[in-house]
Order: sequence, then C-alpha cells, then structure tokens
Amino acid sequence: MNAGILHFASDYMEGAHPEIMRRLAETNLEKTPGYGTDRYCAMAGEKIRAACDCRGAAIHFFVGGTQTNATVVDGLLKSYQGVIAASTGHISVHEAGAIEFGGHKVLSLRGENGKLSSKSIDAYLKDFLGDGNRDHMVQPGMAYISQPTEYGTLYSLEELAAISGVCRDHGIPLYVDGARLAYALACPENDVGLPDLARLCDAFYIGGTKCGALFGEAVVIPNPRLIPHFFTIIKQHGALLAKGRVLGLQFDALFADGLYARIGKPAIDAADKIRAALEKAGYAQHFRSPTNQIFVVLENRELEELSKRLEFSFWEKKDEAHTVVRIATSWATTGEEADDLIAALSSPRA
Amino acid sequence: MNAGILHFASDYMEGAHPEIMRRLAETNLEKTPGYGTDRYCAMAGEKIRAACDCRGAAIHFFVGGTQTNATVVDGLLKSYQGVIAASTGHISVHEAGAIEFGGHKVLSLRGENGKLSSKSIDAYLKDFLGDGNRDHMVQPGMAYISQPTEYGTLYSLEELAAISGVCRDHGIPLYVDGARLAYALACPENDVGLPDLARLCDAFYIGGTKCGALFGEAVVIPNPRLIPHFFTIIKQHGALLAKGRVLGLQFDALFADGLYARIGKPAIDAADKIRAALEKAGYAQHFRSPTNQIFVVLENRELEELSKRLEFSFWEKKDEAHTVVRIATSWATTGEEADDLIAALSSPRA
Amino acid sequence: MNAGILHFASDYMEGAHPEIMRRLAETNLEKTPGYGTDRYCAMAGEKIRAACDCRGAAIHFFVGGTQTNATVVDGLLKSYQGVIAASTGHISVHEAGAIEFGGHKVLSLRGENGKLSSKSIDAYLKDFLGDGNRDHMVQPGMAYISQPTEYGTLYSLEELAAISGVCRDHGIPLYVDGARLAYALACPENDVGLPDLARLCDAFYIGGTKCGALFGEAVVIPNPRLIPHFFTIIKQHGALLAKGRVLGLQFDALFADGLYARIGKPAIDAADKIRAALEKAGYAQHFRSPTNQIFVVLENRELEELSKRLEFSFWEKKDEAHTVVRIATSWATTGEEADDLIAALSSPRA
Amino acid sequence: MNAGILHFASDYMEGAHPEIMRRLAETNLEKTPGYGTDRYCAMAGEKIRAACDCRGAAIHFFVGGTQTNATVVDGLLKSYQGVIAASTGHISVHEAGAIEFGGHKVLSLRGENGKLSSKSIDAYLKDFLGDGNRDHMVQPGMAYISQPTEYGTLYSLEELAAISGVCRDHGIPLYVDGARLAYALACPENDVGLPDLARLCDAFYIGGTKCGALFGEAVVIPNPRLIPHFFTIIKQHGALLAKGRVLGLQFDALFADGLYARIGKPAIDAADKIRAALEKAGYAQHFRSPTNQIFVVLENRELEELSKRLEFSFWEKKDEAHTVVRIATSWATTGEEADDLIAALSSPRA
Repeated sequence: MNAGILHFASDYMEGAHPEIMRRLAETNLEKTPGYGTDRYCAMAGEKIRAACDCRGAAIHFFVGGTQTNATVVDGLLKSYQGVIAASTGHISVHEAGAIEFGGHKVLSLRGENGKLSSKSIDAYLKDFLGDGNRDHMVQPGMAYISQPTEYGTLYSLEELAAISGVCRDHGIPLYVDGARLAYALACPENDVGLPDLARLCDAFYIGGTKCGALFGEAVVIPNPRLIPHFFTIIKQHGALLAKGRVLGLQFDALFADGLYARIGKPAIDAADKIRAALEKAGYAQHFRSPTNQIFVVLENRELEELSKRLEFSFWEKKDEAHTVVRIATSWATTGEEADDLIAALSSPRA
Repeated sequence: MNAGILHFASDYMEGAHPEIMRRLAETNLEKTPGYGTDRYCAMAGEKIRAACDCRGAAIHFFVGGTQTNATVVDGLLKSYQGVIAASTGHISVHEAGAIEFGGHKVLSLRGENGKLSSKSIDAYLKDFLGDGNRDHMVQPGMAYISQPTEYGTLYSLEELAAISGVCRDHGIPLYVDGARLAYALACPENDVGLPDLARLCDAFYIGGTKCGALFGEAVVIPNPRLIPHFFTIIKQHGALLAKGRVLGLQFDALFADGLYARIGKPAIDAADKIRAALEKAGYAQHFRSPTNQIFVVLENRELEELSKRLEFSFWEKKDEAHTVVRIATSWATTGEEADDLIAALSSPRA
Repeated sequence: MNAGILHFASDYMEGAHPEIMRRLAETNLEKTPGYGTDRYCAMAGEKIRAACDCRGAAIHFFVGGTQTNATVVDGLLKSYQGVIAASTGHISVHEAGAIEFGGHKVLSLRGENGKLSSKSIDAYLKDFLGDGNRDHMVQPGMAYISQPTEYGTLYSLEELAAISGVCRDHGIPLYVDGARLAYALACPENDVGLPDLARLCDAFYIGGTKCGALFGEAVVIPNPRLIPHFFTIIKQHGALLAKGRVLGLQFDALFADGLYARIGKPAIDAADKIRAALEKAGYAQHFRSPTNQIFVVLENRELEELSKRLEFSFWEKKDEAHTVVRIATSWATTGEEADDLIAALSSPRA
Repeated sequence: MNAGILHFASDYMEGAHPEIMRRLAETNLEKTPGYGTDRYCAMAGEKIRAACDCRGAAIHFFVGGTQTNATVVDGLLKSYQGVIAASTGHISVHEAGAIEFGGHKVLSLRGENGKLSSKSIDAYLKDFLGDGNRDHMVQPGMAYISQPTEYGTLYSLEELAAISGVCRDHGIPLYVDGARLAYALACPENDVGLPDLARLCDAFYIGGTKCGALFGEAVVIPNPRLIPHFFTIIKQHGALLAKGRVLGLQFDALFADGLYARIGKPAIDAADKIRAALEKAGYAQHFRSPTNQIFVVLENRELEELSKRLEFSFWEKKDEAHTVVRIATSWATTGEEADDLIAALSSPRA
C-alpha cells in the first residue's frame, strides 16, 4: 500500500497480536493430532469456558465468520426452518447467500441502527402462531443477532435478556454473532459480559479474525447437546481445519491473562478520540455507535478530497450530495495513527 | 361440507371443467408413453404456442404452482444468484421456503398492492452494480412477478413492458407466475394477452389448478435454449409426472375453442356483482382488485356473525377491531351462489 | 400410438381404474377445502389404516414416486445423514439426483437381483461404528428398499423382518418404496402383507400411479411423531397438491371393497402366462422375477425383429450379441393382449 | 503427546516450513486489504502461473481441501450434474457429504489402487449417452481424480493425458485434487509436472496444508472464464478468508526459489528408507505406493505391540487376523525419525 495513505477501511488489515505470533513460532514443529483434538484446542476451550463461567460448554473453532454462521445456523435449524435476523444483519446481506445455500431462509425483520428489538421478535413469533395457514410459511427456528452489530451499536444487558426471554418463551434458540466481540467488551458503556452471553444465548461466537487473531472464531455452545454430531456438520460444511491446533493455540493466547478483554481497548480509545474530533470539526455521524466503527456523513467534495489521503469503506449514498463512509479502528491502531487521521479529517473543514 | 355454508375460501375448491372430465374419461384406457412424450402433450403444446403467437416456445407441464416456481427459478438461476420478488409474492411468503430449499435467496422488494414497479427493480439492479463490495452479496439473477398478483391486482401492458425493459437492459430473465392467469384474461380492464407475455417475458406459466383444470400448470419458455436440460431439472425436483398425458390432455381441452380465454368470466362477473354489493352495503375493501379475489375489511363482530354462514380466507388483522378477509370466486361460481353471498353479506349491515 | 403395436413398455401407460374415474366424475363439482384436509382424504386414510391394521398411522398423499421418496427421505434424515440403498434402487439411479438435491448422499450397497440383504446392511452399519475416523464420513441415517424391487423381485417376510431387526438394532428407520406394491400383494408367492409393512417399517408408500390410480402414492407412517412438521416439509418440496381431494378420492376408491388387494391380479396372471411361454420358446430370462416385470434376454436379431411389433423397455446390453429388455404387464393388461404378445414372441423362435 | 511415541499418523501434524513462519512474522503488522486483493496474493499468483507455465491462469486460495473440493465442484457443475470420482476418492468417502450438501451426486466408479482409468471414464460416459432413458439419471458433468491418490499412487503422464483426452472428447472438465501434490513432484518416478497439469486439466489445486504450509490450498484454473463469478461462489461457501494475505504470503514463500518442488523430498526419502526396511523385515505392503504414504499389513499381535511405540492411522481390517495401517511421512520428517521408526518396526519381527 502507498506510504502516506492512512488505512481505516476495516479492522482486519493487520496480522495477529504479537503474542499469538510468538506462540505459533514457538510450537511450530511440534507434532499434534488433527481436527481440533490437540492439546492447544483443549487448553483454549478450558480458558474460554472459564471466561464464560460455563463449565459444560462445548467450544468449536472455525476459520471465519461466514463459515461459522452458515454452519451454526444449519446445525441449529431443521430443514424446514428459517432464521430471524435484522435486515441489516451480516447473514442477511453480506454472506453471498450462504444461509440459503444451506437451504434456509433468512427471515428479515426491520431493526433500528442494526439492532432487533425483543418486541419485534415477539410480534413476529406470535403472528406466526396466530390465525391463518402458517404451515405454508417458513417456520422461524432461531434468532440471530450481532454484538456489536454491523453498525457498531450494542445490545444492553437488559435488551439481550429481553430477547433471550422471548426466544425461550417460544422455544427457539438465540445465536449471537460476535465477530467484533472484543470491541464490545472493551467499550465502557457495554454491560454484557461473556458469562451473560453464555447464560442468555444458546450459541455465540467469540470473534478472533477482527480482534487480534491471524484468523479464527470460537463458537460457544453452553449446552452441547443442542447440536448433535456437530463435528460431522462442520466437516460437511468444509469448515473443519486439519491443523486445528492453529486455531486452538491462537485462542489459548487470546484467553491467557485476560488478553481478549483488553485487546479491543486501543481501538475504542482511538475511535473515541476520532469521534470527538469529528464532532468538533462539525461532521455529522450517520448514527451513534460506541464501538470501533464510525459512520461519517461526507459531502461529495470532502469525500473526493479525503480519499486521496485516507482509506475507508464506502457505506451508502445518503443523498445526491452526501455519502456515508465507515472508519474502522482496530486492536492494532496506534494513537499516532488516530492523530494522523484526525489531522487529515480536519483539513477539509479547516 | 355443511349444507347451507357458502364457500368462497379459494378458487381451487371444485374439480375440473366438465369438458376436461369428459376427455379424461374418453381417453382413459388408451396406452401412451410417459413423462410428457405422448400425443396429448404435443397437441396441447401446439395449441398453447398458437395462443401465445410464439411458434418456437417450449411448453412444459407441471402439477402445481409451488413446484413450478421452484423448478423454473432453479432452472433460470446460477447457484450464486437470487430472485427479485415482491415481499408479498407467493415465492416470498407462501411456499414454505421452496426457493431457499433449492439454494437461492428471494430478494424481496417492497411492492404496492402486490405489484413491483419497474422503477424499484431498476433501482435495485443499479444499486447492486454501483459502488461498494457487491460480490459479497447475492447477485440478482432474475425477476419474478405474478399476474394477477396475490392481491388480485393486474400489471398493465405498459407496466409489464417497462419491467421487461429493465430486466433486458440488465440482462436478467423475467418470469411471470400466472397461477390465476385466466382471471386476468377474463377481466375487462386487463390489456395483457398471452402473446404479450410471450413477447415480454422469458418464462411464464399458465395456471390450470385455479382456472378450471383438475390440477396442472403449463410453463411457456419462448426461447427454449434458456434452460438447457430442463427435463432432468424437472425430474430432479420430483416434478415430472409419469402419466404426463393427464396434464397434456387437460391443457389440450383448456386451449381448444378458446376455452381458457373464456373460463374465468363467471368468476369475474360474480366478483363484480359482489364488489358492487359490498360498496352499496358500506363495506370497505382493503384495496381495489379487479379480478376474482376481493379483500374486505370486517368489524370483528361482523366477522364472527358472517363466519356462521360463510367460508372465506382470513387474510390479516387490520387493527384490534377489524380483520381483512378474502373472498374468492372461481370459474365454477354460479350467479346463484353470488346472490346468496350478497344476501348473507347484507344482513350484518342491514 | 400405432395400431398393431403391442404395448408392454411400462405399467403406467393407461389412465385409471374405471371405478376411480366414476368417483372423480361423480364428485367433480363438490367444493372441498385444500391441501388434504378434505373428507375424501380422511376417508381414504381411515381405510388405509384399517388395511394396514395400524390405527395410529399418519397417511400422506403424494403425486409421484420420486417426489415421495425425496420428501420422505429428507423428512427422515438429519442434514448430515445419508440413506442406505441398493445400487440398483430407484433413488440410486433413476431420480436424477433428487436425494442429493436435498443435500443427502445415497449410500449404495451392492444387492442381488435388486435386493439388499440384512447381512450387508448390518455389516455396513457395524463397519461405520467400528475403528477409524467415521465422523468424516456420511452417517447412515436410514435404509431404503423397494417391494417389489426395480427388478420385480420380492422380499420374503423373513427377509423383511431381518432387515427391520437390523435397522432397529442400530436405531435407524426403514423405508419401503412400494411403487408397485399391488403387484407384490397379488403375487402368489408373496407373504408380506400391508400389516407386516406397517409393523416392520417406519415409513412406506403404497403405489397408486403404477397400480390403477390416475396418479398418486400414499405414504404410511406408523408412528406419526417420526417426522414432525411433515406438512411443511411436503410444501417446501413442492409436493403438496392444492386439490388434495383428487388423491384422497382415488385412494378411497382403491381401498374400498379390497380393490387394491385384487387390482394387480390381471398383471400377475398375464406375466405368468408370458413367462411360461418364454420358457417354452426357449428364451432366457435375465433373472427370475415373480411379479409384473419380466426381463428377457434377446439376440440382437430378435430384438430388431420384435421391435417392429412390440414395445418394451431397453434394459441393458448383456454382451455384444444380446440385450436385456423389460416386458411389463399392468392392472389393465387383458388376457387377449397377453396372448397377442405370446404369439409375437413365438415367431422369431418358431 | 507422549515423549517416546513416534508420530507417523498423518502428514499434517507439524506447523509450517520455517521460511513461511519467518515471512508471516516479518509482515505481521503491515496493513493490507482483504479477501485476496492484497499484493502477497498477487505475487504468489504470479509465481504459480510461472511455475505452471500458464500465464493466463486464475489462482484462488482456499484454507483446506474439503472446502476447496466442494467449492470448485459446485462452481464447475450445473445443478443437475454430478461428478465422476473413484469410489475411494476423498470426495466419495471422507468429506462427510460436502458435495451432496451442495446438491450434487458423486458418481463413483471402481478404481484400482485409488486410480481411475481413462477407459472406465470413457465407458461410463459412452454408456450414459447410449440407449435408454438417461435423462432420469444424474448427468456426469466433470471428472475428479487425485494426484497422488488417497492411496499414495500416481497417475503417469500418459495416463493423465488419456483421461484428459476422454474428458475433452466428451466436453466435461477434469479436476485434480493435489492435496499432496508436493509428494508427487518430489517422487523420482513421477513424470507429471505443474505445466502438464495446467495443460491437461481444467482446474487443479496445489496442496499446502499437507505440504509445508500452515494451511492453505491454491486452485489453478487455466482458463478463468470456466467459472464465472467464482469469487461470490467462494464467499457463498463460507470459503473466503478475510485476511487473504495469510494464504498469499504462504504460497509466495512456497513458490519462491523452487521451494515447493523440493519440499516433499525429505518425505519421499524417509518413505523409501522405511519401505526398504519393511521389505527386509518381511512385512507385506497392502499395495505399492511410491509417495509418502505406506500401507502395511500387520498381524493383530504386531498391531497391538507396535501401537505402544508408534502412532499411525488405522486403515482397514484385512481379515480376522490382519489389519492394514497407514504410515505417513511429511516434509518435516527427519532421517532420525525414520531410523527410529525402522528400529521400532523391526522389533516384532526380530
């Protein structure tokens, strides 16, 4: 990439946390059995269970998010069921139809700022059970939410508990996509911890790829009997890593000494600084997001000018004259990089 | 069913047009080869090609609508493509996920009164081709509309031509679900004929089940090369009828002497009479539909009272005090039945 | 078809038993609710339950065999399971991949004359549970057999009981494809009755299409809880007939006064006569089949000559000089037709 | 793992070649764009194209073999087609139904020592096009072979050219699974080079996971137009690695300075030594395999004794008294490890 360009397009531009690289190098020529049956996977599983305060949980490691979602959703649903999700959810929009490839419909509900409300889920489920001929429709078999959402917003503990309650009342599992979970955990206003997720959800994943791992996600299933023969389902989805230890070892490093709880902090610190500077410079934010993603409304002229110095993600056109772009910080963002970005952003409005 | 009850729940409550029954009886012990290779299928195909003014079209017979939609959509789409449809379309809501079972996403767009506009399809397709990373999204590979729609409304020739134009500009096929096509053809305000469909669409089906056949739908593909090996695709979907002649013979009867063009008229006549009476009695219609389906708003008290005499379809709750119900007439509805219904409807408002 | 040609290509060349045609005509303009909820389906279900001596069975009606097999297999299997079948089974060879379309592997075992042995199923299941890493393999989730088989052979009661025992020992359901079941029931050497099937199988279907119905198959599930939400699964497969009554009524006719038990007799009588004549004339049979299908080995010269008078199915090349053809009789075959066939067959060997 | 145990269970027990680890560490904090659009993927692609002498090839990187096979097969086949493979092929047996999950049948042919012959493929394809009703059967849409095979055997250039010729005559693509390709390339008796594969196949993959990479496989498609929209298909399969650079960088290292051509040599040297010792000690080999996998027949008593010192893969029971086990060497196997193994193997026969 060009020197001088500031890279804020996503939170998966760097490699891995140095501790992970150290552990990979250190164990490189050890011989271990395959498919997640090695001792590093076992050690990582133990640490994750402890962090979730959920001794009986099954832990499964995956390589990436779309793969994880497609496999878990397929594992949880019967062939004739679909998954409730926000219309902005990752599985609804950005997984190229991976859920449908598995034969399941995504039952999209309108959310707000990326979030579903317990009320809208409840209304949908009640309506489905109501009058009329519902057995010609796809049966809602689970609910999917993301924490943080694709828009960087957070479910509060109260909101999560309410959604969990609705799902349990209706007997369907709740699954949480935690691709950026570390950025929720590091966010001051977050009140949902790993033990809360383990208590309130039926399955969730702890994101590694965007949160300091070279790649990898850890699925937590508090009650392992929920998905029988999950190993074979993972294999069938092409999602079983031969050298499972590469995943286990990374999560063992991420969950040693509380690293995962801390690892998102630099991203949040940088994002907070950037948000303050944006407000000061008079930029509008598309909506308030407290985590590592910032959605800024730019005039087209500003967009053009900033694009010369700055790399961000195009999000959507707001109107003819304005565009929404996403700035993402990461675990590896330095204070200096944030300062450079702030300086760059200030110039069009100076 | 109870004597005295008036049946207007759907347009597939009766058997077949007497002429079809006569032909089935007459040919019953003839021996014919299977799978649509018999002479009745050939004769029906010829008649349909003539009625569509499309000599080169391939004609395929199916047993029912969901099966037809799932098979045609799967035949038209590549594995990574989805189908654009109104969020109220039959494939979006009432086929139990048959499209997703085939691995494809239904890309739902908001319509109006059951109809998609060429503008909204164009906007969706242009947006898909626009900025941002669209190759993580399901590629729109075709458009699906229904004529008449699930709400009994009609596309005008102008509207259909506009949609066809948008699809052709973007290089995707347009498919029309004609489950109730006879009721469009018999409707005075309809200006879309079979040759228009053959000219403007890439595939469409002529509904039999709801339009006088015992069962069956006839798919018309103006350019047969559009779906190579469609025979095997039909078999793979479990949609190939062994005694194909039973379908061919029915459509041969429906397309002899212009029967199909006339067969919907009793339904339209009855529906017009009922609509006039509803207006006179002061009932609100949920929206205006010119074909054989009538959507009436009832007070809950009226709903309860009418349910004792009358069988209709529950459609949706309008609010706490009102419910929308559907009254459907059919090719077999008699003037006397319509009069009885009108009398019954009048009593709560008398 | 050409006059003078004798048609023995398949057992689905004619329409329906006259009694079925009479009932269809008689009830044609009755109004009934859709999707199998009508009184004819209920009446047919009662009669089938009585014939099977299985009062609690669920009865579901389908249009054709491939559709039935694909839907039942998908209903019985988990997403990661496959179905054990003979490599000559209909689902293995002649359904265009309908089982795989549903995401499941057909686990083919070598049979003999179309039949699987309990021993080979047991060996496969035991091997799967044995040493080695089986969770990388498709788990066998059910067994499929046909009665009669695709080669016209029959499982004896003893054989069926042994297969049933093996399946139950291993906890997997046994499903029997009875596309031609009437020809088993009418065969003197058959000792497997409907109550035996209901007792020993977990699902089976009673063939209508090839056994006197216009079309249709009746699935019997002795324990209805075996496939939850089967209605929606049927709809999802595009296999739900809107006017379900057309199926119900046919099976009500087939199971009135023991018609189904008798209906195959003319086929068996004709086939026995033909087999005796073939032996007398010195034709080799590919293997012995006691039902309505006869597999004859013809010299190529005979094949050519007979093809002028006779329509049969090409089965396979035996060697460079010989071909196996199939002659199929049906419920509608008359004694005169059999005599004509015998005369025609005699001429090349006269 | 226990000290003192000798590990020969598989060729994916170690991490990565040291050069790969060095490059991963060196570039760790660089920022690169995602999904394979980074410069390391571009550099690796260039090197692979050069090694294959195929300037126009498309190169796509995947994480693992099952994922690669499932995605490429799905990309190459139409919905109604299946893939021809040896009944011992990886996709036939050990991918948990991943091909069927994508809706396709594996059309298994009997091979010999893991290999298909051009003659058997030709016969299958000709038979499919022959007499009889083939459009009720799954159409063969491609052929799959492995080099080396799952049994360590090799196709000669002559054999590969013959298979390629048959496929091209019939217009179907040929795909080669090269999970262990480095061990073919390092084998003295191999005469098939990368340019031969690029010339004779329509798609193949160069295995990384078992050949010195931490993980990863590189798919080569000589004519990129063969699979349109492959990027989206990869995403739909959950097979798109966010940090694609991790794959690109590994293959850039493997293809720098001819490393990939050399990397399998230690495995072949060790295997040759072990094979010689086995012969000397009087062990039977199940069949002759010239690459890094050795299949030894052990008496059950020997199996038990050796299991205490030695880790290998159970392969199959030969008979009541004998078992076949697999010994696999790898790029990381040292001469000392081979000597230890030889010593251990000698003791039961001493």
